[in-house]
Amino acid sequence: PMWLALPAGTGFPLQNLPWGVAQPLGGRPRPVVRLGDHALDLAVLADAGRFEEDGVRAALQAETLNAFMALGRPAWRAVREAVTAFLREADGDSGLRERAVHRLADVEMGLPAVIGDYTDFYSSREHATNVGVMFRGVDNALQPNWLHLPVGYHGRASSVVASPRSVIRPHGQLKPSEGPPTFGPSRELDFELEMGAFIGTGNALGVPVSADDAEAHVFGLALVNDWSARDIQRWEYVPLGPFLAKNFLTTVSPWIVPLDALEPCRVDAPAQEPAPLDYLREARRTTFAVTLEAHLQTAAMPEPARITRTDFRHLYWTLAQQIAHHTASGCNLRAGDLIASGTISGPTPDAFGSLLELAWKGTKPIALPSGETRAFLEDGDTLTLSGYATHPDGTRIGFGEVTGTVLPAR
Amino acid sequence: PMWLALPAGTGFPLQNLPWGVAQPLGGRPRPVVRLGDHALDLAVLADAGRFEEDGVRAALQAETLNAFMALGRPAWRAVREAVTAFLREADGDSGLRERAVHRLADVEMGLPAVIGDYTDFYSSREHATNVGVMFRGVDNALQPNWLHLPVGYHGRASSVVASPRSVIRPHGQLKPSEGPPTFGPSRELDFELEMGAFIGTGNALGVPVSADDAEAHVFGLALVNDWSARDIQRWEYVPLGPFLAKNFLTTVSPWIVPLDALEPCRVDAPAQEPAPLDYLREARRTTFAVTLEAHLQTAAMPEPARITRTDFRHLYWTLAQQIAHHTASGCNLRAGDLIASGTISGPTPDAFGSLLELAWKGTKPIALPSGETRAFLEDGDTLTLSGYATHPDGTRIGFGEVTGTVLPAR
Repeated sequence: PMWLALPAGTGFPLQNLPWGVAQPLGGRPRPVVRLGDHALDLAVLADAGRFEEDGVRAALQAETLNAFMALGRPAWRAVREAVTAFLREADGDSGLRERAVHRLADVEMGLPAVIGDYTDFYSSREHATNVGVMFRGVDNALQPNWLHLPVGYHGRASSVVASPRSVIRPHGQLKPSEGPPTFGPSRELDFELEMGAFIGTGNALGVPVSADDAEAHVFGLALVNDWSARDIQRWEYVPLGPFLAKNFLTTVSPWIVPLDALEPCRVDAPAQEPAPLDYLREARRTTFAVTLEAHLQTAAMPEPARITRTDFRHLYWTLAQQIAHHTASGCNLRAGDLIASGTISGPTPDAFGSLLELAWKGTKPIALPSGETRAFLEDGDTLTLSGYATHPDGTRIGFGEVTGTVLPAR
Repeated sequence: PMWLALPAGTGFPLQNLPWGVAQPLGGRPRPVVRLGDHALDLAVLADAGRFEEDGVRAALQAETLNAFMALGRPAWRAVREAVTAFLREADGDSGLRERAVHRLADVEMGLPAVIGDYTDFYSSREHATNVGVMFRGVDNALQPNWLHLPVGYHGRASSVVASPRSVIRPHGQLKPSEGPPTFGPSRELDFELEMGAFIGTGNALGVPVSADDAEAHVFGLALVNDWSARDIQRWEYVPLGPFLAKNFLTTVSPWIVPLDALEPCRVDAPAQEPAPLDYLREARRTTFAVTLEAHLQTAAMPEPARITRTDFRHLYWTLAQQIAHHTASGCNLRAGDLIASGTISGPTPDAFGSLLELAWKGTKPIALPSGETRAFLEDGDTLTLSGYATHPDGTRIGFGEVTGTVLPAR
């Protein structure tokens, strides 16, 4: 029993309570949790003395979640419990309730944290294989290192923004098959369906995190669209990796789903052969089952059409392995850092996580209900990622969505 | 005439006045400029009303330079002028003088700014050619894209720290020529002699900076040692670029030399053939002449020995071109961002900017005065980068140094 009504079938019940930062009209940004179609104001609850620890109170009065993230899981759990108790009070303070509850329609959601560093992995075997087959042939699909380490790279933090956000078609160098490169708008704008982990507690420079300890450092998960310009990438990426092809925009969903909300959805991770080196071994290799979808709506379509459905559980390298590898050199992670999974493709063609794969490098454009086809994104297209997990009892844990419309190049 | 005495031959005369952030013993970090062997406390001068604009006053009372950097060159120049006037006052406030001046020996220098993003370019033709010859042979030394765009990648911001700082030999995956990879301490630890530009005024997401406007966005230059583990890099870098090989530590000199101090050292940049695409063209292609050196001291040596001397002017791609390229996609730069040049190698073997090149992939270990040789850095070695520019009138503009000692792997 709870005094705040939930819409039927919501992905944001008491069992979810994802974290975010909301800016009420005319107000300052403040930490919130989502319940149904409302945001519960943690700064107001902190002011009202609802959280016992001074550190928690101060952290929840900040304009980002970074300080709260750094406090660690015991603090995160204590706030989840206090919020749940507040929502279940039979006979509570009606003034406080009114001040603490914002309708989502009345707030603007921002980035939940200052992202000090954004790392992007490449951990889907199906995705890496698809890309390899397209560009190097079936016999050399996976690079020699791929099965031995979670390949990843440092991305651009400044251009990570919260959904919704339009994407301006980027310029860059394009290399025709004959002749010198030209400069102009990308003709191969793509999305990448990814999951992102926000780091809670960091590690000191020089002190690696073990695979078994890694999950304790994770504040929660969000959806990530790592917009990509395939033609720019093809020409620029040798030998130091993607640069302009990725740094024009990365969009994240504004809600960070706690691992505690996903615990009932824990499943075994895919078996690994060859066995990983010791520093990448986990006592038990697990991950979470999260259904992930992409919907595309062109300017001519009355509603979006689903173009893929995949699952977080397909990833070959787990989040724990990514973190263990990332820090094995002594690299430090900080509260608010974003670690994305890389494109998550499933084993079948209807489960691929990018247009590059769905339309197979432009050779098999996808058909849309409007009769249109797409090899890559066109101006006016709206691409939306969404996701949810389902508890064994049927409770749905929503991730919300990441959406953006393609604007013409400037 | 100036009331603060300068050591003979200092690289920090009135014409330099590099920016930094100093922490006096027991005090808070505060913005300073360096003069000789002293740091002049800008927070104290701001408190004393020495800077006219409110924005400048507030910015100089912060614990980092980010807010001040964002104010732009007119504000930077106004403070340089006010500081110069203060130092030249014949009959000034002796109490204020005492409060404003710290001996460098009494303060600890920190990172001058919160670095939102760290980008590393690869802009020395000699360096890229050397690496290419070593790993792909003379005929394929430069990759096809190298002469068309300033190749660069996003580095790790969290592990950028101020000099002096010891470097712990990092662990990572090492691939023997036969058999599977192993995990262990790098055996090929190297330095990279680089110059770094700190961004002052940023650009909005989606709005590129033109090559001709680019220098106006630069707050100043500092020395950078991008410590690198060559064996880790060789195995991991395909296809997304260096990751663990670089993210364990990057060290910067704590003093940011203003471009105004380097203006008298402006020189033509190397000619480019083929001509760059329009967005990379500058009305006049210039750079700065800055002598750069590396010194190595092993545990057995009584003093350091110079192992290379090169010059910032050798870079094929200028800082302006790097910035124009970086933002061409719409990527936003922010105040405090660090843009490093990549290893700066000169045309002769005594001017190479890394041990990889100086000892030619381990095949020609360098000889030291102690009778020792080095192919890569060994535990206990201290590597120091230093630099200076010289005005036509002989005035020396120092950059200070970046130094670190190699500690054994944990």
